[in-house]
Amino acid sequence: MAATITLITDFGLQDGHVGAMKGVIHSIAPQSTLIDISHYVPPQNIRWAGFVLMTAYLFWPPNTIHLIVVDPGVGTGRRAIAVQTAKGIFVAPDNGVLSYVLARERVMMAVSLTNEQYWHHPVSPVFHGRDIFGPVAAHLANGLPLQRLGEPLNPDSLIVFAVPEPVRHFDRHITAHIQHIDRFGNCISDLPAHWLLESPQWRINVANRTIESIQQTFADVPERDLVALIDSSGFMAIAVRNGNAAQMLGLEIGDPIFLYPVSRDVLII
Amino acid sequence: MAATITLITDFGLQDGHVGAMKGVIHSIAPQSTLIDISHYVPPQNIRWAGFVLMTAYLFWPPNTIHLIVVDPGVGTGRRAIAVQTAKGIFVAPDNGVLSYVLARERVMMAVSLTNEQYWHHPVSPVFHGRDIFGPVAAHLANGLPLQRLGEPLNPDSLIVFAVPEPVRHFDRHITAHIQHIDRFGNCISDLPAHWLLESPQWRINVANRTIESIQQTFADVPERDLVALIDSSGFMAIAVRNGNAAQMLGLEIGDPIFLYPVSRDVLII
Amino acid sequence: MAATITLITDFGLQDGHVGAMKGVIHSIAPQSTLIDISHYVPPQNIRWAGFVLMTAYLFWPPNTIHLIVVDPGVGTGRRAIAVQTAKGIFVAPDNGVLSYVLARERVMMAVSLTNEQYWHHPVSPVFHGRDIFGPVAAHLANGLPLQRLGEPLNPDSLIVFAVPEPVRHFDRHITAHIQHIDRFGNCISDLPAHWLLESPQWRINVANRTIESIQQTFADVPERDLVALIDSSGFMAIAVRNGNAAQMLGLEIGDPIFLYPVSRDVLII
Repeated sequence: MAATITLITDFGLQDGHVGAMKGVIHSIAPQSTLIDISHYVPPQNIRWAGFVLMTAYLFWPPNTIHLIVVDPGVGTGRRAIAVQTAKGIFVAPDNGVLSYVLARERVMMAVSLTNEQYWHHPVSPVFHGRDIFGPVAAHLANGLPLQRLGEPLNPDSLIVFAVPEPVRHFDRHITAHIQHIDRFGNCISDLPAHWLLESPQWRINVANRTIESIQQTFADVPERDLVALIDSSGFMAIAVRNGNAAQMLGLEIGDPIFLYPVSRDVLII
Repeated sequence: MAATITLITDFGLQDGHVGAMKGVIHSIAPQSTLIDISHYVPPQNIRWAGFVLMTAYLFWPPNTIHLIVVDPGVGTGRRAIAVQTAKGIFVAPDNGVLSYVLARERVMMAVSLTNEQYWHHPVSPVFHGRDIFGPVAAHLANGLPLQRLGEPLNPDSLIVFAVPEPVRHFDRHITAHIQHIDRFGNCISDLPAHWLLESPQWRINVANRTIESIQQTFADVPERDLVALIDSSGFMAIAVRNGNAAQMLGLEIGDPIFLYPVSRDVLII
Repeated sequence: MAATITLITDFGLQDGHVGAMKGVIHSIAPQSTLIDISHYVPPQNIRWAGFVLMTAYLFWPPNTIHLIVVDPGVGTGRRAIAVQTAKGIFVAPDNGVLSYVLARERVMMAVSLTNEQYWHHPVSPVFHGRDIFGPVAAHLANGLPLQRLGEPLNPDSLIVFAVPEPVRHFDRHITAHIQHIDRFGNCISDLPAHWLLESPQWRINVANRTIESIQQTFADVPERDLVALIDSSGFMAIAVRNGNAAQMLGLEIGDPIFLYPVSRDVLII
């Protein structure tokens, strides 16, 4: 069975960009399966694309090829790369879009996509998704070994942005940050669930609202109430049951969330 | 040939939710074909999803698996179900999203999805699409018999909302209701075409506008004019030729449409 | 291997229209591969759909079936057609949506889709995508010869709109026009790249802004600056590096762009 290629782009679905890129891939690898993950990454939003990829890649077989084209630096000196890990092959511009993956997975091999033999010609200087990343992903789906695509790269040279992280203060309270807001208005923080094990209970402050504890699911609070819970991505999130937390509280990506441990000691004071 | 799974969700396409769910399905049933019907059901809108399903399922082969995940009650006691009919297998939360299907099709078998063996673990209490509904659909696509998925259910116990219906008044006039507004602004009522056979002609009143008769198609009226016709779903609809009826008349789902029979008898009075 | 069908429609993804049409196709041609190009053509916008098709079709294998359903004249006397070229088979209403293709490709065979044997019955007078175009595309994917679908047509009788073209003035300056604005706000003109060979340099005036020369790619100018370049579609475009040119300049489809040759002769004057 031929390989599967997943697609994450900021192309939108009102133009022919997705159709052109899929056509090039399909022409090279007609047996491959193309799966849309998202074409609605906000334009040029590398961090958004990285987060979408993080929430999806782990659920795919390790021979899947993930093609991510959010490429504000197209036509500059930024490298085009393919990265092999135990959890999948990633084809993308070297602009940080793989930061979450690189923070979690060991790189088995990384290659700079310099071998023009596997590109679509002529190459447009403004659409490497169609002319470089797409055809390279297709050749990988056909079984071409990664090293044939160009020069090997030192994994340490790959560009990464700092994956957002919460801050633990000396008095044990935590400042987390919203790193993504999804279609439902759920505000997903950068606080991994395991940080919460340090205290049996946490009081949360966000946008001058207080949430007294962390729940299991939306339905643990009344309709339209604020709720803090562990999102399916494994991070703490602020949500509203059957409502939109981001709209209700005016929250944006980057906004802080404060967590205070609630324990007998604290209560005694 | 492996089975086909269609997808209807309210996840949107800007996040990784769809990609994660597809990944779980593809990992279990790599030979299955995944077809997107809609990921833009308005958030938590069970009735909307039910209507979308109604307009699509009849056109698929009866061995198709329809996966519908609009799940405001995720993590509550609401059941997860799979329902076998002669027109397809439906995997969904037991929250009424199958109401249109259950009003039209005889249930051959219904099962509560309690067999954790066919779930994806660990199960997030906020994303059963990825961890229960998706993997169950994938196992069905692989040929797993429905009864293996959990406990049999009495079909009469399935939750349904009242499918909207028009009201026939003693003087033979009818009150219909808008049950869906599509991308074109066409306002699809709950009046099935066969109700119109009772009179050779009907005068229609909607939003204080009068339409003198029901036409075959948009082009039976001038550009930008109001038209009443039978929609492709089999219900009467109010539309504007090459325009947007909902916007032009300020119509919303639930709004009434009044139909008056026009006949010699009536005219004589 | 069964044929591939690409889809371009104005149906949007919030309703069941796409799902119904895919279901009819899949029922007839279960081995075919369905590829979404765009379902977000603005409602009834034939020119938009034609442009999307133009930017995508050349990248697909010549045995691909392109199904384009943007059909404001559904139910009128407008013909339903299938057109064979060396670059693909096109199934669409005869309303000009193939204008770009017909301006570039020689028609090998054109057929009016009158053979009701290959339709889905009953035929809704308001949804020929589901009941005529879709099933016809599916039968073609199954290998049915084009001529079986209906009456042969004289290619000269096919309806085309005038594909937009720039105007060359007597003093060698050019008036181009914006023919498409993509998701990024890039304004793609009707000026093909080869027109620019006539002068080593061009000065561009658009929305009372001057651009001194044409660049290779976005990154040839500072962030948020205006740039003129050759788009991946082969036409000159006005863009903003990592910004939205259409919004920044208030540009719309149809707006003019003026190009002045810059040469020693001109400078001497």
